[in-house]
Amino acid sequence: MPIRVGILGATGAVGQTFVALLDGHPLFEITALAASERSVLKIYREAANWIGGNEMPDRVAEMVVQRCTTALDCDFVFSGLDANCAGEIEADFARAGYPVISNARNFRMQPDVPLLIPEVNPDHTVLIDRQDWGGSGGFIVTNPNCSTVGLVMALKPLHDAFGVDAAHVVTMQALSGAGYPGVSSLDIMGNVMPHIGGEEAKMATETGKLLGTLTEAGVDPADVTISAQCNRVPVLDGHMECVSVRLKAPASAEEAAHVMASFESPPAVRGLPTAPEFPIRVFEDERFPQPRRHAMAGGGMQVSVGKVRECPVLGVKFVVLSHNTIRGAAGGAILNAELLNAQGRLARRTEAVAAE
Amino acid sequence: MPIRVGILGATGAVGQTFVALLDGHPLFEITALAASERSVLKIYREAANWIGGNEMPDRVAEMVVQRCTTALDCDFVFSGLDANCAGEIEADFARAGYPVISNARNFRMQPDVPLLIPEVNPDHTVLIDRQDWGGSGGFIVTNPNCSTVGLVMALKPLHDAFGVDAAHVVTMQALSGAGYPGVSSLDIMGNVMPHIGGEEAKMATETGKLLGTLTEAGVDPADVTISAQCNRVPVLDGHMECVSVRLKAPASAEEAAHVMASFESPPAVRGLPTAPEFPIRVFEDERFPQPRRHAMAGGGMQVSVGKVRECPVLGVKFVVLSHNTIRGAAGGAILNAELLNAQGRLARRTEAVAAE
Amino acid sequence: MPIRVGILGATGAVGQTFVALLDGHPLFEITALAASERSVLKIYREAANWIGGNEMPDRVAEMVVQRCTTALDCDFVFSGLDANCAGEIEADFARAGYPVISNARNFRMQPDVPLLIPEVNPDHTVLIDRQDWGGSGGFIVTNPNCSTVGLVMALKPLHDAFGVDAAHVVTMQALSGAGYPGVSSLDIMGNVMPHIGGEEAKMATETGKLLGTLTEAGVDPADVTISAQCNRVPVLDGHMECVSVRLKAPASAEEAAHVMASFESPPAVRGLPTAPEFPIRVFEDERFPQPRRHAMAGGGMQVSVGKVRECPVLGVKFVVLSHNTIRGAAGGAILNAELLNAQGRLARRTEAVAAE
Amino acid sequence: MPIRVGILGATGAVGQTFVALLDGHPLFEITALAASERSVLKIYREAANWIGGNEMPDRVAEMVVQRCTTALDCDFVFSGLDANCAGEIEADFARAGYPVISNARNFRMQPDVPLLIPEVNPDHTVLIDRQDWGGSGGFIVTNPNCSTVGLVMALKPLHDAFGVDAAHVVTMQALSGAGYPGVSSLDIMGNVMPHIGGEEAKMATETGKLLGTLTEAGVDPADVTISAQCNRVPVLDGHMECVSVRLKAPASAEEAAHVMASFESPPAVRGLPTAPEFPIRVFEDERFPQPRRHAMAGGGMQVSVGKVRECPVLGVKFVVLSHNTIRGAAGGAILNAELLNAQGRLARRTEAVAAE
Repeated sequence: MPIRVGILGATGAVGQTFVALLDGHPLFEITALAASERSVLKIYREAANWIGGNEMPDRVAEMVVQRCTTALDCDFVFSGLDANCAGEIEADFARAGYPVISNARNFRMQPDVPLLIPEVNPDHTVLIDRQDWGGSGGFIVTNPNCSTVGLVMALKPLHDAFGVDAAHVVTMQALSGAGYPGVSSLDIMGNVMPHIGGEEAKMATETGKLLGTLTEAGVDPADVTISAQCNRVPVLDGHMECVSVRLKAPASAEEAAHVMASFESPPAVRGLPTAPEFPIRVFEDERFPQPRRHAMAGGGMQVSVGKVRECPVLGVKFVVLSHNTIRGAAGGAILNAELLNAQGRLARRTEAVAAE
Repeated sequence: MPIRVGILGATGAVGQTFVALLDGHPLFEITALAASERSVLKIYREAANWIGGNEMPDRVAEMVVQRCTTALDCDFVFSGLDANCAGEIEADFARAGYPVISNARNFRMQPDVPLLIPEVNPDHTVLIDRQDWGGSGGFIVTNPNCSTVGLVMALKPLHDAFGVDAAHVVTMQALSGAGYPGVSSLDIMGNVMPHIGGEEAKMATETGKLLGTLTEAGVDPADVTISAQCNRVPVLDGHMECVSVRLKAPASAEEAAHVMASFESPPAVRGLPTAPEFPIRVFEDERFPQPRRHAMAGGGMQVSVGKVRECPVLGVKFVVLSHNTIRGAAGGAILNAELLNAQGRLARRTEAVAAE
Repeated sequence: MPIRVGILGATGAVGQTFVALLDGHPLFEITALAASERSVLKIYREAANWIGGNEMPDRVAEMVVQRCTTALDCDFVFSGLDANCAGEIEADFARAGYPVISNARNFRMQPDVPLLIPEVNPDHTVLIDRQDWGGSGGFIVTNPNCSTVGLVMALKPLHDAFGVDAAHVVTMQALSGAGYPGVSSLDIMGNVMPHIGGEEAKMATETGKLLGTLTEAGVDPADVTISAQCNRVPVLDGHMECVSVRLKAPASAEEAAHVMASFESPPAVRGLPTAPEFPIRVFEDERFPQPRRHAMAGGGMQVSVGKVRECPVLGVKFVVLSHNTIRGAAGGAILNAELLNAQGRLARRTEAVAAE
Repeated sequence: MPIRVGILGATGAVGQTFVALLDGHPLFEITALAASERSVLKIYREAANWIGGNEMPDRVAEMVVQRCTTALDCDFVFSGLDANCAGEIEADFARAGYPVISNARNFRMQPDVPLLIPEVNPDHTVLIDRQDWGGSGGFIVTNPNCSTVGLVMALKPLHDAFGVDAAHVVTMQALSGAGYPGVSSLDIMGNVMPHIGGEEAKMATETGKLLGTLTEAGVDPADVTISAQCNRVPVLDGHMECVSVRLKAPASAEEAAHVMASFESPPAVRGLPTAPEFPIRVFEDERFPQPRRHAMAGGGMQVSVGKVRECPVLGVKFVVLSHNTIRGAAGGAILNAELLNAQGRLARRTEAVAAE
């Protein structure tokens, strides 16, 4: 019996990626699509301006889009809503007893909401137990911003092995990170845009929480200083990031490369359907990784690292690449749901809903 | 009476930029074009696969391309030669009494050869007097690598005002920096390439020499630690660089922006035909600079800075943009020649040639 | 005394091109900028998201944007308005006595409104005398769609010499033709879009009127069958068109190339400030024209033709390139105004306005 | 028992596509890789600059590259050789008894060599019986040029139903069609190149042979006049073609769309591993097909047609898209081999080789 899934914001760019990635999923089945007023009561084929390379799955194409109200027939929801409406709607669903696995930024930094990368901080899901939605059984779990996830997955093994004191990161981010229609072709063709609103602050605060430790009060952020410079480049998918780190314990570039290449998923994550066999691939070929060639590694869930070498200013430097709409958005959220399901948190909550 | 100029490597990408920029120059007139065997005895129109947006200047188009031998009828030469042949040929010309204003990397780090940015280290031209080419009167002057020049022009006022202890730079470099045919479209369309051979080392050593001080032995490099990460992006012209600096004396982002915006050319440089009125423009609009919109500022000779702000890791960070084939190659070399001419160094040497 | 110009829709993509091209114009001076409610009472620098490569002209940057009402202090107006509001506003201005030189499509096919390319049908300006705006002295003149102008300028000399029976045209159109923000980068990066709404019909009807003959009733369209297939390609500026023509009198490719290369502006047009010295350039090099290299020929006003050769199906084929926002929009409208001014039609009308 | 395959020109762009597409093929197994002197005796991983998005298959990566001599241990060869050496080498292999399934152009127009698209002219394989390679049992079969195949697959059902009298085609061709490194990024970024050497002639002659009828003397070309205009556009994969046809029997656009959409593979082709379920997909959505979204339809083997409508000049017009390196090169050749295998022509010949 598959678990029944609803998608909030189903017609948007993130929502479409949820639909594409859940096609044929072994555990989850889409049973409800919800979007804004403009799309309500249309069939999905008509409502969504499908922008992906693959075809819209036939079964979903004929489903009727509903309002984002808490009458959706499903066991939990993925939220691909825009931040300007996600706060209220996601809270409504949690209050109504739905688990909400959200890609929106609204609840990420709330003390009792897990900001979750399964390979990095799977234990943070216990925060769920501290959430209070009126005893509904609902809860909210979030995944980080698309530019944060690649950085943090590369930092995690370094932090475990040597302690990361500071990281300097310059991003070269793909267009799909801005949604659709997103960036005007007249702005980005043959160009670089050195500004992405709010992105640099998010990378700093989210990294602290993701690498932080659980306390009574929530998550004590890791004591890692982050400085980010974020740029948009004319690439379709895949955020490239040039990272330099200052480590607390001395480490050579070889040692740094080794701990990243040796990084393994925690036992709770291994074998989940969307989990890549190796979370990080470290390239020895100095020409790699490249977004167009490697963003889709591991079905878009593997993070690629390359050019690990000494940094005369901070210690060690490297590049990291991650797929921004899969690992950095819908795919990351799906992996979050798979972990929660393995922890029994989806089944329990959905039973609660069913009992109402 | 214009000074007569020869161009070595006239058919290549840099050579073509020399030809385009010298069209209508008030001081210099092209009287000789030289290139490799393949082009010799052809007229320039046939020999050069003209890749620029403007038309090839008519007068030059009909000139016959000669061998790169020291029989060229001119007072000095610009060299746009490839590094694999520039060493020998440029030395031959210097030995034969020609001033050689070179864009090649071969002699840049030689102790008695000026590595010159007129706004930064015009006094380094006295190194010429230490060169020994058998009393020929010839000499060699070089300009830095295209990725170095924007960085150093931004660092110069900071170094003068506060002292630069270290700089971390991530480049996003344009395609024209790789020459023609250069980068395959299959490699770079919708992609980022995180490796440019030799570039990161050049940025470190050249910056030290450019900001260094004259000594008996040559140039004592500035004690500035540089860490560079170099990337190729799908942009035609204009290298973008994300820079973070650690200053010796504390300075706020506002103070850093102020000294960069206030930077003036030395008196010897002001008013030279190719010198921009303001060497550095500091944007307040956080969306700028962008390569496609601002690379051509000041005829491609002005450096654009933007997003000056605090860096929690190193102190101050910003982006800097410079036109890689103008300021970073042919235009920079022409400005070098204009400075040398103003210092009387071209006239004297060319008289020596004439006297032979 | 320059003639005083107002620009309707001054903040949009076409309006910005008017502003850029009129900077330093010898006859016309911008004295009024008007735009939609969102921009009213802002200075132009704040109101317009300037997308061009050059800097916004300083004088205009400080002007205050006004409403599109007929109180503008100017002798005539250029209209860069969107079609959804151009009809009403342009009629208002004509009724109020202003000459309206419009780039919008609304009045193009109206019998008494000239659809004008000065080099092609300068005599069509007499239609102005048939316009009835309540005796105000105002009138409307239009220029064709950006994809029509290159085609018609190439067809004109062929039609005069041999008679064009039919033309088949496939366009590859630049992004700037869709305005700003226009085409999403996610749609067009590394892609071709085979549909541009309404474009194919416009190319057929407008060509007929432009090559048509004046009659009592208006313009009798030329008996030329046009079939157009319109595509969007990832090019910034410059529409490329592959044209095949069936001529009424037999002609070789050489003869066709010759009449196009020999095409001269009518005497009334020669010497106008914006008129290119040669309206059409015919390339012999089969690699040319190319949009990025040749769109700006003649300041963006020259049309480039290449690859003239036999077509086994229709007779003769070739490619034609024209700059879509200059020759195909704002520049074409400015040339229209220059012709009207030379014909005394701007002065007369503006005096009428002044007399009110 | 899989049939053992050798690949000539294995390190080039076409050769790499053969390797990628044959990974996991149910009938064919790569047992030999051959390339030019530069690669000989290297393992494939080192010899090939792998440009595809997917990983190089592990098994093949460790194979040693051999010379293109007739000592290869395989039952037949695919040839991805360049035309400048394909003629001699392919003839050598045929003479030595190998079936040669070639993508090169050298033998395409030879009277006794099939130019083959299985869905279009599967009966042409009988030409093999007329080839004389000294009784070796070897033979040569070719597939058409990458720009021809989409055109001909769209024309085939129209020709069968109504007779095609003439077709006018304008291509917008992808970069991968020019091989690697192929087109310089400086030439094609934000540009269109209106010339591809030899392409227009190939489209005419090859179409005639593909739609032609078998005679005693070879293939009597179809009496279809073709006029092609070929352009390169900044697209990675997928040739778009705007086609207008003049039919012998009158047909509406709806009828034309219907026969294309109803086109079925001949029985001999249905069910072959590489054959798409539907050879042609006809889109009703006027925005489609688009190369980036639909080139990979049917694993890159399905041809996409859209915008079927009346053409006032020739009768009916439409766009057709096909993947140039799969359907138009390596994938087409593999389908050819599958057809030959089903016809018993691979088995018989390979036994002959084994018997020597």
